[in-house]
Amino acid sequence: MKLTTNRNIFKYTENSRTEREDEIAVEYPLTVVLNGDEFATLVCSPSDLEDLVIGFLASEGVIRFPDEIKTISLDEKGGFAYVEITHQKPAGAEFYSKRFIGSCCGKSRQSFYFYNDVKTAKTVLTRAQITVAQCFRLMRLLQQHSSEFKNTGGVHNAALCDPHSILIARTDIGRHNTLDKIYGHWLRNRIPLHDKLIVFSGRISSEVLLKTAKIGVGIILSKSAPTDLALQLADQLGITVVGFIRGDQCNVYTHPERITETIAPD
Amino acid sequence: MKLTTNRNIFKYTENSRTEREDEIAVEYPLTVVLNGDEFATLVCSPSDLEDLVIGFLASEGVIRFPDEIKTISLDEKGGFAYVEITHQKPAGAEFYSKRFIGSCCGKSRQSFYFYNDVKTAKTVLTRAQITVAQCFRLMRLLQQHSSEFKNTGGVHNAALCDPHSILIARTDIGRHNTLDKIYGHWLRNRIPLHDKLIVFSGRISSEVLLKTAKIGVGIILSKSAPTDLALQLADQLGITVVGFIRGDQCNVYTHPERITETIAPD
Repeated sequence: MKLTTNRNIFKYTENSRTEREDEIAVEYPLTVVLNGDEFATLVCSPSDLEDLVIGFLASEGVIRFPDEIKTISLDEKGGFAYVEITHQKPAGAEFYSKRFIGSCCGKSRQSFYFYNDVKTAKTVLTRAQITVAQCFRLMRLLQQHSSEFKNTGGVHNAALCDPHSILIARTDIGRHNTLDKIYGHWLRNRIPLHDKLIVFSGRISSEVLLKTAKIGVGIILSKSAPTDLALQLADQLGITVVGFIRGDQCNVYTHPERITETIAPD
Repeated sequence: MKLTTNRNIFKYTENSRTEREDEIAVEYPLTVVLNGDEFATLVCSPSDLEDLVIGFLASEGVIRFPDEIKTISLDEKGGFAYVEITHQKPAGAEFYSKRFIGSCCGKSRQSFYFYNDVKTAKTVLTRAQITVAQCFRLMRLLQQHSSEFKNTGGVHNAALCDPHSILIARTDIGRHNTLDKIYGHWLRNRIPLHDKLIVFSGRISSEVLLKTAKIGVGIILSKSAPTDLALQLADQLGITVVGFIRGDQCNVYTHPERITETIAPD
């Protein structure tokens, strides 16, 4: 399916109006039907849809391994993904998106607000390291990668990288979907994660941070800002957050021990 | 409650590292408890929370008028909004976020993908008009408005305007929340909408477009891009979408009849 579509628009300045063809990002509703019941509708860019569904179900805590999926079939025209999983009732189904209230004394995981995140987000123990020069370079590579972004201005990008290069990059109109597409791909291919990082075009909210933890990556780079809740979670989950990567400047918010100042040999 | 918080971070260039205090956007989970049952958790900036909850419930089709809310009480520390509504079972509860499948022959509302949107999004018949110079000026006013945005880079802004000025502006880390805060305020104050428009900092997705229609405003201005589904909905619902407002240029995507080229007297 196409990720963009053409449309005639009017370009205005204060004194002129010209009609021209413009490229617009496609927004595609995909309804996930789980063991016969409607589970959720994802609004996404129509690419890597199986990866998206698998990553989404793992991120929601419905599955932990791809072999828990018996069948997955896509009705691309209708916008449906029919998924049969091995267990009748998803583990912890009663807790999806249910608010998690930590005990008032316990200190652990107080920043978590959904039960399924408490269960599925792992503390990341990776010893991966990266130099700031590599941060700047990977962000430039991500920005060069997406032609859709350049043409439509309407999509986000995420990439799974090692310190030297982009391994897989995914595009979507939804920030979270880019990460679910990467998660789904990773679950099916099990690329070793010890030296990997995520490079991301959007803001680092708590949900983005939690998805990074669920994938199991210890470093996330973004050109945008993080929120305070994302940083609290990053502190707890052992994730290095680097934000505001612009040209040759960046901010390191959490776990700076993974940022080395000398350039490792390429 | 505060919208931002301070935190020590490290600022890196390729050759230097300095520690300094930075301002970070607060991300606040607010769980809406409806007639005693957990209904949804909104992750938001902690301002205008009653307006947010009322706007969200109206946008979801749970209420149509604010007097359907018997009581609303906030537990700000815990992050809960307890809402009692007059009807036991929300109208159309069975359809929340349920995928809407249009008949294959019917042409109307084929772009809608949720039942509650089919019920609540109205075709907008306003005769409001605006000049391109006013579009440029309102976008500049919105950008000047938010000090949080300038300091944290992590929040979105939306404003309800007339062609000459901003009437109310709302800030949130979530794009959609900015519109729900405006919707809630509007429901409680019933400002006449015939000459009003929305000025928005984020991308115009289908959900943003539908919220504009639910509020009942006929023009939306954004500095960002729209999606194709948002434009299909705008075509159908009679909404003028102006995007990519940058300096003294903009794109008019739908219903250009509301954009006049001469400047109306201020």
